[in-house]
Amino acid sequence: MNPMTEMERETREAPQAVARLLDASLDDLAALGRRLSGMAPPVVATCARGTSDHAAGYLKYLLEIATGTPVASLGPSLASVYDAPLRLRGAVLFTISQSGQSPDIVALQAAARAAGALTVALVNVDDSPVAQAADVAIPLQAGVERSVAATKSFIAAAAAAATIVAAWAGDERLLAAIRGLPQSLAEALAADWSALEEPLSTASSCYMVGRGPALAIAQEAALKSKETAAIHAEAFSTAEIMHGPLRLVRADFPILAFLPEDRAAAAGRAALQRLQAAGGHVFPAATADAPGKRLPVAATGHAHLDPLSMAVSFYGLMEKVSRLRGFDPDRPPHLLKVTETV
Amino acid sequence: MNPMTEMERETREAPQAVARLLDASLDDLAALGRRLSGMAPPVVATCARGTSDHAAGYLKYLLEIATGTPVASLGPSLASVYDAPLRLRGAVLFTISQSGQSPDIVALQAAARAAGALTVALVNVDDSPVAQAADVAIPLQAGVERSVAATKSFIAAAAAAATIVAAWAGDERLLAAIRGLPQSLAEALAADWSALEEPLSTASSCYMVGRGPALAIAQEAALKSKETAAIHAEAFSTAEIMHGPLRLVRADFPILAFLPEDRAAAAGRAALQRLQAAGGHVFPAATADAPGKRLPVAATGHAHLDPLSMAVSFYGLMEKVSRLRGFDPDRPPHLLKVTETV
Repeated sequence: MNPMTEMERETREAPQAVARLLDASLDDLAALGRRLSGMAPPVVATCARGTSDHAAGYLKYLLEIATGTPVASLGPSLASVYDAPLRLRGAVLFTISQSGQSPDIVALQAAARAAGALTVALVNVDDSPVAQAADVAIPLQAGVERSVAATKSFIAAAAAAATIVAAWAGDERLLAAIRGLPQSLAEALAADWSALEEPLSTASSCYMVGRGPALAIAQEAALKSKETAAIHAEAFSTAEIMHGPLRLVRADFPILAFLPEDRAAAAGRAALQRLQAAGGHVFPAATADAPGKRLPVAATGHAHLDPLSMAVSFYGLMEKVSRLRGFDPDRPPHLLKVTETV
Repeated sequence: MNPMTEMERETREAPQAVARLLDASLDDLAALGRRLSGMAPPVVATCARGTSDHAAGYLKYLLEIATGTPVASLGPSLASVYDAPLRLRGAVLFTISQSGQSPDIVALQAAARAAGALTVALVNVDDSPVAQAADVAIPLQAGVERSVAATKSFIAAAAAAATIVAAWAGDERLLAAIRGLPQSLAEALAADWSALEEPLSTASSCYMVGRGPALAIAQEAALKSKETAAIHAEAFSTAEIMHGPLRLVRADFPILAFLPEDRAAAAGRAALQRLQAAGGHVFPAATADAPGKRLPVAATGHAHLDPLSMAVSFYGLMEKVSRLRGFDPDRPPHLLKVTETV
């Protein structure tokens, strides 16, 4: 029998990582959310790369939907390459990073702080440069992460983001569901997504779709598919996919849809029907009926958290698919754990 | 001899489209840029889909680099699906649309205006709902566009964006280069990109890369590749590509790099070297030496405009590649000219 890969071990630690985060920092995260609500910033900016940028995207959709505050994703190169004269007085900058040490992220946070933004860092390495230089730093408590493919640190960052937004918007129902997240994520580890193993094991190309908060999880899934299994997966919203990307869909083209039961669910189902009619092989991760071959989802009690449950089930699937394709998910060729971009 | 496709005819009209835009609206665009500079909004929001969203991305990078104002891309679904309580008092919303009639774009513009944003519409159909309901509407003057694959309307929208940013930032050198854009774009039509015809004609998958304003053009090129030639092309910044996407690069994997001589050029060259070392087949569109098989670029006199010259040369190439693959670039299966998303 094979020893467990780091990716599998760390995916299985996601529920405990979130439990540690909530034990240690739920009060801090909620207090931060209430403080930001009182500030009522005209804009929130985010700065992150790779997987952490998908957690930033999840924060963006949750915050825009709940509070209407526009969220701008800032390329770290604005500071590190373009030396832009940032105008961020009264704004809030969220920096999200596993390692907290990429030089371009450090540079943008410093420039934003100098420009008058309140800087908030969500990082997994407490004594990292990003954490040390932020106005408010909240440790993600995910524990050491060894696999190049980040998993538990992404789930912890997204859970932290959801907690801040819940407190900001005063959404007690979301806060209650967040308290139950460790249990829901443990159930997500057991969800049977084997129906996708064979289609992904033989695919060279596929789409991951979602809308709103679920789109951020589709983007994370697409990156993991490339990174761990050399599948050219790309993410689209179920709206954008009709503007050209639909052209690629053909018989047996796998499409994984992240479909929580939020306000976008009806439009999402209609899009999946159209993708099926074009020949696509549709797999909706959903808690209710949907077109295609449904993948079971461990419900979290809130449509905005269900994408995190789906992400955990997806990581478990992808670790298997990577090995089925003959790869080691922990050691993708060419890639390093910390990408020190300038 | 084949009659010209609509895509080829409309690509060839891009220089005249920009000339018409500048003749009719240069003063209006410059006045708008100066007005917005005086407003000093804390945030600029954009709303667009598909090709128009790439023009919005080009606006975002130019404006952030030149003025430091954060630019938030808002999903139209915030209004049409999620009914979010938009907070945009004092903000500016740019809506970019060829047809000006997609219901979700109309809905977000109306919601933003009601929330106190100044709404600016860049549309190609003057009497469209988006143009009629905006505070300021500037017609793109691209003329009727028939091909499903938009070309001249994208170039006109991007030229309008550059003009607004140049006036906002008081960048006389950029304004002067914009006046010469019709001539540069006419030269771009004659640039020889045939070196990419064979690699793209046989590729099933490829990357388009860039950084800053050039990344928006890489995104547009990736969409066109899917739409007109069923190639799974995906765009990445030369920084993000090191976070996982690099995993797909193998021998003969085509990589088209949009590499203007701006501040990111040195980092871009280093990234292309790494992509070559991983086996990638690198084609830089560049006005100076770069790793790989260089594609000639008609220089515009400003690094921020060179990506538009590259886009025109790319459209010409892609129309040929679509036909070489046995397709009609004007009539991609499944797709319509106006996508009426809700």
